[in-house]
Amino acid sequence: MTRYKIILAYDGTNFAGFQRQPGQRTVEQALTKAVNKMAKDPATPIVIYGAGRTDAGVHAFGQVVHFDLPTAINPEGVRRGLNSLLPVDMLVKKVEVVPLDFHARYDTVGKRYWYRAYQNEFVDPFKRNYTGHFKFTADIERIQQAIPALIGKHDFTTFVASGSQAHDHVREIYSAKAWALADGEIQFEFCGSGFLYNQVRIMVAVLMEIGQGRRTVDCIPQLIAAKNRAQARGTAPASGLYMKKVYYDRAELQSDLNSY
Amino acid sequence: MTRYKIILAYDGTNFAGFQRQPGQRTVEQALTKAVNKMAKDPATPIVIYGAGRTDAGVHAFGQVVHFDLPTAINPEGVRRGLNSLLPVDMLVKKVEVVPLDFHARYDTVGKRYWYRAYQNEFVDPFKRNYTGHFKFTADIERIQQAIPALIGKHDFTTFVASGSQAHDHVREIYSAKAWALADGEIQFEFCGSGFLYNQVRIMVAVLMEIGQGRRTVDCIPQLIAAKNRAQARGTAPASGLYMKKVYYDRAELQSDLNSY
Repeated sequence: MTRYKIILAYDGTNFAGFQRQPGQRTVEQALTKAVNKMAKDPATPIVIYGAGRTDAGVHAFGQVVHFDLPTAINPEGVRRGLNSLLPVDMLVKKVEVVPLDFHARYDTVGKRYWYRAYQNEFVDPFKRNYTGHFKFTADIERIQQAIPALIGKHDFTTFVASGSQAHDHVREIYSAKAWALADGEIQFEFCGSGFLYNQVRIMVAVLMEIGQGRRTVDCIPQLIAAKNRAQARGTAPASGLYMKKVYYDRAELQSDLNSY
Repeated sequence: MTRYKIILAYDGTNFAGFQRQPGQRTVEQALTKAVNKMAKDPATPIVIYGAGRTDAGVHAFGQVVHFDLPTAINPEGVRRGLNSLLPVDMLVKKVEVVPLDFHARYDTVGKRYWYRAYQNEFVDPFKRNYTGHFKFTADIERIQQAIPALIGKHDFTTFVASGSQAHDHVREIYSAKAWALADGEIQFEFCGSGFLYNQVRIMVAVLMEIGQGRRTVDCIPQLIAAKNRAQARGTAPASGLYMKKVYYDRAELQSDLNSY
């Protein structure tokens, strides 16, 4: 038996999220189908394990998945084989053989998410599936003043959606940044130990409200202290969120944190 | 009666092209529906006229359309009204009142097209609808050496698709450029008096073949002289083509040609 770790990109627009659901087109279902087709042994079905679930419409540049093949195939053969079998909105970017105790979900030491927010009166046809649309203009300087308060180890109960199965809401955010593009798009990047269900989208919604002047620049410490989801309210649209990178190695994580 | 000129952007992915076709979702059909809904007078149907047809999958940043409204509405009201009624993959960027003898199709003095070619073994999920996919790597320097031979007034019979209704195949190309991005994407921009059916896509296919070493760098003058479509063969995918700008004013055209 050989364990493979793959890095997967997908355009989330036409998927009902990562997790398998009966009668729905999901990333897990499409990848499971391709892996089993490649393995050519219907008698021993292969199960795949993802680093994290993404919701419907959420994109990935660097989702990580592991699975075991009973008969070893070289990594390059796995990459090409899967890419030939997968639909065009999914792409295997990298394949490695890993030790049999590697686990895509439980071995993570950090995750990096990217969010694209586009501010305009009407939706831009070319951004509609790839950004979250906001009708009101946000001031990037207000957002940049507010965002460092999210960094550190906090109980993020205020920033977790009601569907969360996590018991412990303490997470550590290593870096949180926002910047504006010339066309009015605002981009966010968050790197942390892990994120709660919808946490990034709820943080972006709060930050955009701060930028729009609907919340004070210094409101984040009180929001965190409140431990009350009702105080954060909004959730930024799924279409702007990208799972950018999953870390399994502390040295690589540290190196990225130093260089970003 | 008031004549309006609008600048229209659309993501061509989910349209069966510009031109109205029974039972198909087209740009002309969607815009005609929105204009007539805005005008609120079913007794006098309003017809729209586009600067040029785009094929299924082809995008536009700057398609131009004119139509007449029996009762004048201020241009900003037309822009907001249409954007509220149009589907999310279309956007009216600008509205102007123009003289009643303005014609979006017959008054053009130039057009600018942009083409995005992406070279990779497998299709990239985020580029699949927005670039033309090429399996084999092209050398940008070979393309840049070959492309100036397209500039000037030529009979482009070799570069016209068989469905063309044009009798005269002489067109003038004012500028033709190609450059490479860091990720392997090659972009092309062509500005000319007008372009024949599929002309830009056929020129890109030839240029990519030159870049891939399947044609000589100096083949273009012979291809033009041959006046024979069979010698050009390929047509680059529709998904990489963008109608960028339509010119009605020679001074503006000249100014853009000087500054690009």
